[in-house]
Amino acid sequence: MSDLLNSIKLPAEIANLNEKEKIELCCELRKRIIETVSENGGHLASNLGVIELTVAILSAFDPKKDSIIFDVGHQAYAYKILTGRNKKFSTLRTYKGISGFPSRDESICDPFTTGHSSTSISSALGISVANELKRDNAYTVAVIGDGSLTGGLAFEGLNNAGRLKKNFIVILNDNEMAISKNVGSLATYLGYFRTRPGYIKAKKSIETNMEKIPLVGKFTANLIRKVKDGIKEDIYSKNIFTDLGFEYYGPFDGHDVEKLTETLKNAKKIEKPILIHVRTVKGKGFEYAEKNPNIFHGIGRFDINSGEFKKSGDNFSSVFGKKLIDLADKNTEICAVTAAMCEGTGLVEFSQKHAKRFFDVGIAEEHAVTFSAGLASKGMIPFFAVYSTFLQRAYDNLIHDVALQNLKVVIGVDRAGLVGEDGKTHHGMFDAAYLKSVPGAAVYSPSYFDELEIAMERAAFEDKGLVAIRYPRGGEMYKPSYFKASREDYDTVGEGNIAIVTYGRIFSGCAKAMEALKSEGINVKIIKLNKITPIPSKAVDEALKAEKFLFIEEGTKNGSVAESFAMELISKGYGGKMHITAAEKGFVPHGSMQELLKELKMDEESIIETVKNL
Amino acid sequence: MSDLLNSIKLPAEIANLNEKEKIELCCELRKRIIETVSENGGHLASNLGVIELTVAILSAFDPKKDSIIFDVGHQAYAYKILTGRNKKFSTLRTYKGISGFPSRDESICDPFTTGHSSTSISSALGISVANELKRDNAYTVAVIGDGSLTGGLAFEGLNNAGRLKKNFIVILNDNEMAISKNVGSLATYLGYFRTRPGYIKAKKSIETNMEKIPLVGKFTANLIRKVKDGIKEDIYSKNIFTDLGFEYYGPFDGHDVEKLTETLKNAKKIEKPILIHVRTVKGKGFEYAEKNPNIFHGIGRFDINSGEFKKSGDNFSSVFGKKLIDLADKNTEICAVTAAMCEGTGLVEFSQKHAKRFFDVGIAEEHAVTFSAGLASKGMIPFFAVYSTFLQRAYDNLIHDVALQNLKVVIGVDRAGLVGEDGKTHHGMFDAAYLKSVPGAAVYSPSYFDELEIAMERAAFEDKGLVAIRYPRGGEMYKPSYFKASREDYDTVGEGNIAIVTYGRIFSGCAKAMEALKSEGINVKIIKLNKITPIPSKAVDEALKAEKFLFIEEGTKNGSVAESFAMELISKGYGGKMHITAAEKGFVPHGSMQELLKELKMDEESIIETVKNL
Repeated sequence: MSDLLNSIKLPAEIANLNEKEKIELCCELRKRIIETVSENGGHLASNLGVIELTVAILSAFDPKKDSIIFDVGHQAYAYKILTGRNKKFSTLRTYKGISGFPSRDESICDPFTTGHSSTSISSALGISVANELKRDNAYTVAVIGDGSLTGGLAFEGLNNAGRLKKNFIVILNDNEMAISKNVGSLATYLGYFRTRPGYIKAKKSIETNMEKIPLVGKFTANLIRKVKDGIKEDIYSKNIFTDLGFEYYGPFDGHDVEKLTETLKNAKKIEKPILIHVRTVKGKGFEYAEKNPNIFHGIGRFDINSGEFKKSGDNFSSVFGKKLIDLADKNTEICAVTAAMCEGTGLVEFSQKHAKRFFDVGIAEEHAVTFSAGLASKGMIPFFAVYSTFLQRAYDNLIHDVALQNLKVVIGVDRAGLVGEDGKTHHGMFDAAYLKSVPGAAVYSPSYFDELEIAMERAAFEDKGLVAIRYPRGGEMYKPSYFKASREDYDTVGEGNIAIVTYGRIFSGCAKAMEALKSEGINVKIIKLNKITPIPSKAVDEALKAEKFLFIEEGTKNGSVAESFAMELISKGYGGKMHITAAEKGFVPHGSMQELLKELKMDEESIIETVKNL
Repeated sequence: MSDLLNSIKLPAEIANLNEKEKIELCCELRKRIIETVSENGGHLASNLGVIELTVAILSAFDPKKDSIIFDVGHQAYAYKILTGRNKKFSTLRTYKGISGFPSRDESICDPFTTGHSSTSISSALGISVANELKRDNAYTVAVIGDGSLTGGLAFEGLNNAGRLKKNFIVILNDNEMAISKNVGSLATYLGYFRTRPGYIKAKKSIETNMEKIPLVGKFTANLIRKVKDGIKEDIYSKNIFTDLGFEYYGPFDGHDVEKLTETLKNAKKIEKPILIHVRTVKGKGFEYAEKNPNIFHGIGRFDINSGEFKKSGDNFSSVFGKKLIDLADKNTEICAVTAAMCEGTGLVEFSQKHAKRFFDVGIAEEHAVTFSAGLASKGMIPFFAVYSTFLQRAYDNLIHDVALQNLKVVIGVDRAGLVGEDGKTHHGMFDAAYLKSVPGAAVYSPSYFDELEIAMERAAFEDKGLVAIRYPRGGEMYKPSYFKASREDYDTVGEGNIAIVTYGRIFSGCAKAMEALKSEGINVKIIKLNKITPIPSKAVDEALKAEKFLFIEEGTKNGSVAESFAMELISKGYGGKMHITAAEKGFVPHGSMQELLKELKMDEESIIETVKNL
């Protein structure tokens, strides 16, 4: 087998490869990605789906000059390998290694950092307009999946981009699949495109015309236009994209690298904003992933031969999902809402058992919250399960649509705090800060599964208004035998003149530190907040008794719970000092949980050291 | 002239009126609204545009049973008058009087509180789904303008609503005008609808059919369907709304109350989600407003006969606009971005002088920020001017698209703090809280015009990364002769053992209080923060010297700058007490500035009292 990845100059020489070599290059990329993800974990199915597309893009565009933006960015592995990160690719998602997402810090070929959905068209439009103002003739290409298109931001981008005259290309990577199965009318609409006879006819017509081209390169923009014009009266004359001002071409087979290359080269010649509709298969080329693209979306290590990966036990998401079924069994007003994260938030079983009260709204967190507020205004009790980092999208909806009307909506804030290998775009470092500013919100931060269940019961049946329950990614950490979950707003553990105030998962490390310090004769008391907003005033009184005082928080420092605690202390006349351990910079890189906790001085050893230095 | 408003039972008897009476009722409503707004200020043009539509809605639906949601809600005056608030309407927008927006607290006929754009379809969908689950046959009606449709949330709502089977009606109130002139491809698209020959033909066809109906009520759903079918092959068979799963009817004349009533009654019989496209004229019936709908959008008192209102002098928005022109004259990289608020944010002149560097993106704050980030990634210096309360929409974009990449984007946070009569949905009470949690952000809070100009210079040429400059609605308040603007991060005024820490406009009241207290022999020092994030550490040192200490803040208490200040004080070993005056509950009602400042204990008298009680 050839070794093009190591023998040609990347990315410059990709364009010179013949069709056979390009297909070989795709095989090599596929192998490299499968092997690396099987070792490091990561996004598999989405990356395998766009390999041919990526090679075609790099055959038609210059990544150092043109701006190529992958929406979300969980499909940029082939792009990374081909744009100077082949050697480093084995460090994918490891501490200090390369990121799992495009990152401006990492390469000049990554023009814009991505991670959250639906930003690509807006940012690409900004880049394209700047190029025009600076008289730079570079192209801008946004690659966006059909799932990301369900986000309102993508629509805002399309609506604004239609005004642009040239050098602006959107590639719709249509794999019939957001992270969960795509939902909503747009999905139906795209499906309709694909299945109606017109599509088949059109597709054949394109292929026939393609076959007529004697030489690569002669398939000019004019011809593409002719092909399009020929079928104009059939299906392509008017669709949602042309309505928004784009020239539409497609759908094309997303795994035919040569035809894609030609299409993209021709698209460069058309002086209007263009949308190229490409059909791809998620997981392409790895049978386990093709069969189960959801399971192989974001994954840990797995066995290449069997496609199997370590079954992990319960985690906070699965406990949330099970408990919600229990609650919904008892109370017919309880509903579940997800924004395209049915699997990730543990709601698959709920979606089957209580199908009528389950709502997957697509990648549309804003809508999810306002829709939940609508449900609540009529007496339903919606639980919206969403990753902390994505809930940032719905901050205004929490304030304006839920809190302002004092509606009872429960937010399951999944992946609160550090998430590990997904890194800076995905850590849930801000939820404690933005949720506390929402008037009247109650925020729970359970450390263990049983505490999560208690918080869900309290949220469903005791609290009024907006309630958020934040819980970490993954499973429980160390749980001391002497600790028992309570229904109180805070618990204390240990005795001593030194107090550690903390909440959530990080309590585990604090407990271990407390035990180690005790064996050295240093007595520490831990005040563990179960409700972090509003601050339990008795917990403040408890803290006032301590001589020295450390607040440890798995979240950003600016706007932290520690700040609110400090204000309460001051208003009660506290005269001592408070040391705060939190994420000083807000953003945290990728790496294993243990590496990141150490970096933030939140691991057992660092806590011991901090206490000793007080 | 008849007096239907006071002689019939509202809203029950509206449906019984004949066509002539309905037209009379519309005249009375128009008169009442013009008179009240000329006295109280408020939204005029938008309300005059939907009077016939509102009467039609209340002829077809029962507002106590059905849910009628006005998007944004600045067009609900007629609705308020007709649903139990006729007598109270003279208190519109006054302290303790009725709100300028629909409010759940105010009437059971207001099913959902609105104020921000584009929420109506999502909330209506939640209500409709809840009705279905609770087996309630009520209808849900969302009335949304073409401007609000440019918000991504509306698209998310449409995309999800297409799945619904029945009793769900969206009325598109198309007045070719968002708050500023509508922009984007969708606007072009709707314009195309209206002007192409097909529309004229279709319109005539509908009218002809309408005329054939001998008796009111016989114009059944079947007929509507036939009319539609007849022109199916022409223009209506496929459009952006049908693509999203809606049955589409229209465009209809939005000022023909009888035909609208019949259309709505018939729409009730169709068991699919329906979109009814209605054409209205903003300002209808008041010539000054018809001619200048922008000027008569949100206004103060005016003279009915001349259409004139008091010319106000400069305000923070106009100063911002002028200064930005200056900066853009000097530096070709400076751009201006607005989300449909060209007038409100003072950018009209900029849009003319630097047209190529001016971008109105529609009501799309998220896109505005990510688009600005794209501009910045290529070296442009975008200033996005936006109202504080609407910037809440873009919290995630600030974090994920700007701050994470340390891109230089400047946000002009207009209407920061209290806005007065627009009330709880519009006060900018949260920006200080959410902006401080954005990593690396610098936040200025000028008290005076010259300070705003200084902050803009520093933002453009000194600061790196995300910079926000927050400034209040309206003009300057009291400016002491002994105060001179500086380029420092904070200034001190006066001498004394009692310190007041404050920022922004509220400094004026503090200065007055300081002067009054001095005459009584009480010496107060004011520490005025010009940069509120990060907290200037020397200002903290300055505060440490004081014996007693008051922090006054025109913003929400949870997440306040006072909290950050408290944390800084504690980490420096402060032993005294700090009293905090802030918006305890976060939400503040409507009223005049002076009434609201008094309610929040931020007026001169209250500050004096607080200082004396320290």
